[in-house]
Amino acid sequence: MTSPLAATRPLDHVAVAVHSIEESRSLFEFLSGGSCTPPETLETQGVRVAFVGAVELLEPLGPDTTVGRFLERHGQGLHHIAYRTQDLEGDLARLDAEGVPLIDRVPRMGARGHRVAFLHPSGTGGVLVELVERPA
Amino acid sequence: MTSPLAATRPLDHVAVAVHSIEESRSLFEFLSGGSCTPPETLETQGVRVAFVGAVELLEPLGPDTTVGRFLERHGQGLHHIAYRTQDLEGDLARLDAEGVPLIDRVPRMGARGHRVAFLHPSGTGGVLVELVERPA
Repeated sequence: MTSPLAATRPLDHVAVAVHSIEESRSLFEFLSGGSCTPPETLETQGVRVAFVGAVELLEPLGPDTTVGRFLERHGQGLHHIAYRTQDLEGDLARLDAEGVPLIDRVPRMGARGHRVAFLHPSGTGGVLVELVERPA
Repeated sequence: MTSPLAATRPLDHVAVAVHSIEESRSLFEFLSGGSCTPPETLETQGVRVAFVGAVELLEPLGPDTTVGRFLERHGQGLHHIAYRTQDLEGDLARLDAEGVPLIDRVPRMGARGHRVAFLHPSGTGGVLVELVERPA
């Protein structure tokens, strides 16, 4: 991996899987000193999400969802990190060329109207990594 | 939890447990577009650390260390998140008063010469949380 991606990518957010946004939000509001955004439902991903500062709370819509199965296996805890990019398709092409396995070869719509794609943790040292492109 | 902590706390870093900083650094440099800092050894915590942007790489000094045992149980992956505070003692006192269990009741010296303290994940929804106070 010698060729860096096009631009520097800051961390966009860190996601935490929780049983209930309503039950967890006060803790992260207390820790961060910030307020929780109104929860947003992403039906296609089987999840409700809300943000407290740079922490995204993920609540599954049911047990047979990605986050539901994560909670079943691991309990509540850190789920993924997201880097912010300005060139999502370009980054995916460069990562693919480097042999990093992609969960999403084509961006999909994520929370807050941002385009997102996930990389497979088998290629990223066990860490589930998301790339996020905010609208211009 | 009605009384917020004194000031807004941004996320300082996200820590990832890895077998080897040398083997993992290029991946996170590639993802972030940034460079890895020279590794620093924290003997008392049994760990070598290096930073790539807001990601802290944690490499155990041996199997019988906190991070060594984490790797044995979970494999490589997300380890903890750290909030930056300007009043570490005050925050610990307020969290203690709220009944949040503390791993460190007294701050200790962490990476980069910062004073740090960890909260117990049993009180923070399964997430290991660190508070970091940078020197003024």
